[in-house]
Amino acid sequence: MTQPIDFYFEFSSPYGYFASTQVEALARDIGRTVNWHPILLGPMFKIMGSAPLTEIPLKGDYARHDFVRTARLFGIPYSHPEKFPIATLAAARAFIHTRQQDAAKAPELALALYRAFFAQGRDISDAQVVLDVAQDCGLDRGQTAAGIADEAVKAQLKEENAQAMARGVFGSPFIIIDGEPFWGFDRFPHIRAWAEQA
Amino acid sequence: MTQPIDFYFEFSSPYGYFASTQVEALARDIGRTVNWHPILLGPMFKIMGSAPLTEIPLKGDYARHDFVRTARLFGIPYSHPEKFPIATLAAARAFIHTRQQDAAKAPELALALYRAFFAQGRDISDAQVVLDVAQDCGLDRGQTAAGIADEAVKAQLKEENAQAMARGVFGSPFIIIDGEPFWGFDRFPHIRAWAEQA
Repeated sequence: MTQPIDFYFEFSSPYGYFASTQVEALARDIGRTVNWHPILLGPMFKIMGSAPLTEIPLKGDYARHDFVRTARLFGIPYSHPEKFPIATLAAARAFIHTRQQDAAKAPELALALYRAFFAQGRDISDAQVVLDVAQDCGLDRGQTAAGIADEAVKAQLKEENAQAMARGVFGSPFIIIDGEPFWGFDRFPHIRAWAEQA
Repeated sequence: MTQPIDFYFEFSSPYGYFASTQVEALARDIGRTVNWHPILLGPMFKIMGSAPLTEIPLKGDYARHDFVRTARLFGIPYSHPEKFPIATLAAARAFIHTRQQDAAKAPELALALYRAFFAQGRDISDAQVVLDVAQDCGLDRGQTAAGIADEAVKAQLKEENAQAMARGVFGSPFIIIDGEPFWGFDRFPHIRAWAEQA
């Protein structure tokens, strides 16, 4: 019996966004389903002594260029956010709360949040914007607001982020399939090749 | 009239090695030739506040795994060197000296040096090993030894590395084609797509 793919993504990550638009198709092609896991890169950067791509000298200018070009090459709508990177606690907590209520709905919310931030110029670091997006997805605004503020949801996100790091996750997107780790949207072709050879 | 591809590579970089085995085919497919440029990542890491991949917490373990897997997926001979990363001054200077004598011969030397380090377990940080490899390529051992020690060759490498950084080169492999920068072996498919759209 095949195991689901574990798909780790940070809501402020352009390559995570690109991956989110294709991960279900990838999984289908190799006979898998997807478990979606929002992560927070902040604590991971701290351990690595790293920083958001766009803040690194030399690499930053390249990264901004590569975001736009990659989106164009893959036909993914993209407009680099004015405020970037952003805090994604509200988005990640809304995801976790939604998953607890309706597991099938959570990926739909993730895709809508990513689209809002990277294609529609909406600042999803603002909890009110997260609630707007949730509402557009047919979720209850009041319940989602309560979920974002829920101590148990906060603790769950923290715990899941620690678990991800314990599994070796350090970037976005990150996919683990049968224990095999793949970092980066550019590893999608590698995943296909690996699955064929396995 | 099309311009050649500028191909930047560090002799201690596994992804640079992978790229070196495919860059001529890539260029041919898109109607270009290749200018090979050895670079030294050390000064670039200093500016970025970065370090060799394998020395970064979390990322290091993944990188070692990805080197081997990527080589296998692409059918490239690979055995991760016991001593890694290494200083590549001698290799880069031998390349530059060879290019001055016989431009067509230099890429052949680069491929042989890469193969020696990443497939044959030979330590090319040792100038004597570099000379062994040069000799196997049909180059004159004494002349190459003199080239490695030549102050003008040393200055030329330093100057070319500075020029690369001024063009935004910060990693290996790095390709610039008509001013368009691509970082990483995993950008080869992007280069093909970009060239088709251009």
